[in-house]
Formats: sequence, structure tokens, C-alpha cells
Amino acid sequence: MFKLNDRINNDTFEICDLKLCKVLLMNDQSYPWIILVPQMEGLTELHHIPQKQQADLWVEINLASQMMEDLFKPKSINVAALGNVVTQLHVHVVARYENDPTWPGPVWGQAPARPYDDKQRLDLIKNAFNRLQNT
Amino acid sequence: MFKLNDRINNDTFEICDLKLCKVLLMNDQSYPWIILVPQMEGLTELHHIPQKQQADLWVEINLASQMMEDLFKPKSINVAALGNVVTQLHVHVVARYENDPTWPGPVWGQAPARPYDDKQRLDLIKNAFNRLQNT
Repeated sequence: MFKLNDRINNDTFEICDLKLCKVLLMNDQSYPWIILVPQMEGLTELHHIPQKQQADLWVEINLASQMMEDLFKPKSINVAALGNVVTQLHVHVVARYENDPTWPGPVWGQAPARPYDDKQRLDLIKNAFNRLQNT
Repeated sequence: MFKLNDRINNDTFEICDLKLCKVLLMNDQSYPWIILVPQMEGLTELHHIPQKQQADLWVEINLASQMMEDLFKPKSINVAALGNVVTQLHVHVVARYENDPTWPGPVWGQAPARPYDDKQRLDLIKNAFNRLQNT
């Protein structure tokens, strides 16, 4: 049975479930940062996903990327499946700006997360939820 | 008309052209590192690719990832579209090991590239080419 990895669970807040993925907000106000986790047990690599679910995943990556573009108007969107630290397959979708803390470098492992306060977090989750459910 | 970005061109060697993407070997022996560049003009973000070509791209990411798994038996495969430095859309497929120079951190912008010598490079390109063309 699918169970969300504890570290991902600790570092994020839930936005919603799509057809395949759990959509999570990374608790780091340095970047608008979404994590998509396919709700399938034992997956570690993108190319191991069965074809049908892979098609669903790409639809959901597109949806999350479009939401990021619409809500945050970033300079670029970083999409990545890494899995070096947490092996449970998950896809990062990160909105990047030229004045963000690690631009133009990567976001992973560079600086401690800066947690959201409650209002920021609830507003963001509401906006992202509405955009994802109404697209 | 599609033209490969100069910086990508300078940092890589060509392996082959697939249906959509140019497949390139990053000139850095620190990691087996492939770059896929969709041969379409003006693209910067994954979710902007038309649906038909996006399906081709995912087939080619799978193919490159499987080739990396077969040839290099890595601990994990990093798949990422970033575009912070070079905006021309390109997808990294990197084979990672627990003893590589930046594990478990990301590979981008962390350490200077260590170029291949001629024999290493030609052997790698031949093996990758054969695997990609015969799958």
C-alpha cells in the first residue's frame, strides 16, 4: 500500500490529490515549490512507472507547472526527479526568480528552508488548490 | 529553425539524434550525464511543448534513463529540466553514485567539469549510441 515517505511528509503541507499524485507544498518560503508524489508503492525511478500512469504523471506535471506560471510568473520553472536523499519517487516543480536565494544554482541542499507562517501557507494552499481543481 | 545553444554545444559531444531530441554527452567524467534537447525552436519550458512532441520527449527520456541504468548501474538517476542558466529547453539525465563528487547533492553548479580523454569519450559515445539505436 502507498505510504508517503516520512521526510517528505515532515517537509510539506498537502494541497490536494490528483488522479495519480499527491500534490504537496514544500514548507520553504524561499521558493514557490510543489512536490508531486505518484501514489504507487515501491517506485523509485521515472522510467519504471507503467505507461498508463506515466501519461497521468506528465498531465499532472503540466498542470502543476501551468499553475506555477499563472500564480507566480517566475523566470523559469525547474522540474526534477532526483531521489538521492529520499528514494520514494517524487517530482519537484519549483518556480525560480533571478533574485531568489540560490539563483541560478539549484535549490536542493543549498540553504536551510525558511518555513511559512500560517497565513502565508493557508493562502498559498487555497490558491494552488483552486487553480489545480478548476483547470 | 532549431539551432543548438552555444554553451550546450561547447560543454557536450553529440551521441545521436532521436525522433525529437538531440542526445548529447556532457563532457564531465564526474558523472555519466546525458542531455536531451528537443529540436524545436524557441522552447523554454516542458509544459509549453505541444502534446504530440511531449509524448515523444517522454519516450526519449525513458530510453535515455534505461540506457543509463543498463550501462552504468547507478544508485539513482536524476532527471531534470532547469533552464536557469541556458534557457533553451533541455533535459538532464544523470547517473548518480554514492561516491560521486557531489552525492547526495545536485550536480549543477557545484564543481568544475572534469573533461574526458579521447578514448574514454569515444568508448562512451559508441556504447550509448549502440544502446539507444538498438532498443
